[in-house]
Amino acid sequence: MLNYIGTRELQAFLARQPLAQVLQALTGYIEADFRRWAQFEKTARLAHHCPTGVIELMPISDGAQYSFKYVNGHPKNTAQGLLTVTAFGVLADVATGYPRLLSELTLTTALRTAATEFQAIAFHCLLGIRELRVFDIDAAATDKLCANLRGYRDLQIVRAGSVAEAVRGADIVTTVTADKRNALIITPEMLEPGMHFNAVGGDCPGKTELHQAILAQARVVVEFEAQSMPPK
Amino acid sequence: MLNYIGTRELQAFLARQPLAQVLQALTGYIEADFRRWAQFEKTARLAHHCPTGVIELMPISDGAQYSFKYVNGHPKNTAQGLLTVTAFGVLADVATGYPRLLSELTLTTALRTAATEFQAIAFHCLLGIRELRVFDIDAAATDKLCANLRGYRDLQIVRAGSVAEAVRGADIVTTVTADKRNALIITPEMLEPGMHFNAVGGDCPGKTELHQAILAQARVVVEFEAQSMPPK
Repeated sequence: MLNYIGTRELQAFLARQPLAQVLQALTGYIEADFRRWAQFEKTARLAHHCPTGVIELMPISDGAQYSFKYVNGHPKNTAQGLLTVTAFGVLADVATGYPRLLSELTLTTALRTAATEFQAIAFHCLLGIRELRVFDIDAAATDKLCANLRGYRDLQIVRAGSVAEAVRGADIVTTVTADKRNALIITPEMLEPGMHFNAVGGDCPGKTELHQAILAQARVVVEFEAQSMPPK
Repeated sequence: MLNYIGTRELQAFLARQPLAQVLQALTGYIEADFRRWAQFEKTARLAHHCPTGVIELMPISDGAQYSFKYVNGHPKNTAQGLLTVTAFGVLADVATGYPRLLSELTLTTALRTAATEFQAIAFHCLLGIRELRVFDIDAAATDKLCANLRGYRDLQIVRAGSVAEAVRGADIVTTVTADKRNALIITPEMLEPGMHFNAVGGDCPGKTELHQAILAQARVVVEFEAQSMPPK
């Protein structure tokens, strides 16, 4: 018996409860899994690169359950009205090899890696951030973000005219980009003491967001150290 | 738009046309793909081994389409009435990363790798083999095979009492096993001049079927040489 969670099922689930609560629960599950890091058989993701993007398979197992995620990253998709990232995954029994659950992971990935909108909601709901300054080279993307966040009445949204304007005086600076352009969105002169940077997008060669001098000057904080080190 | 082929759809398709014709067409597609071997970006399959079996992901791309197969191999599953091998796969557009087709591959894998029954049917229909001698350590498996092949009236089926009895005088000897026992099903004294061996099951460490002296004495024929060599 294969269970199925589609995007529609997940949207219905998300409509039934406050997103802040979902994000909090999700954070709990992620933390619990990081705490049993050693129990997982981990494999580096298997990436297929092409000029427009990347398709990746990400398998993992804890000995009892096996799972993989299929995820793509195609920044130019938005020009065709398609999503940059889509994903799905399967959960299987290790003992029999039988798949048990097929799930959409597009929305789940957006929640977990905290796509721009979900970063904002999480910081607002979980950390109490009340002012959000946003900048995108695509003004339409900013329009959409503002429209999607309209429901959060205690969150003041300010449209900045440049990256520097958005960054100035901020407590937390989040970059969420997907292109493989060796981009340097944040440059050293934007740095202020105590600023926290989340460089979310840079997850493979060519996908950069910070000038390397920032890394050299900063105290680097990672989600989980063992995950951020090369395998022994 | 994601298309879907389930086991039911495939069974309905197979019911509508002679299996010999399907096998011939399948052979044609496989040959056509081997002829454009160099166009594929190939990756060694990613295996997750456990005491009862293996789960594998097999990705491939020709630059325009990307595909992967999920397949398990759990020989002890049959004791619980489950299949040894189940599989499914996805076909995606490389340019957008969007999945286009989700397909069952359990039946397809049985056809392509030619599970025992399909080996027999293919040899009968495509090569004109008219006598089939079968042996299995599990008599119930032989019963099932005989029942499934009953429709092929020109194919005479003989139940052998041992491996040696099944092999004696045969033109083609096929072994199709799945266990990781370093098995030696065919031993050198069974060899006769001109005999052709298909050792179908041995596809990972521990899954052997032939005594190594047979490999030393035989002329080794592979489906496609480039596929059988270690990557350069």
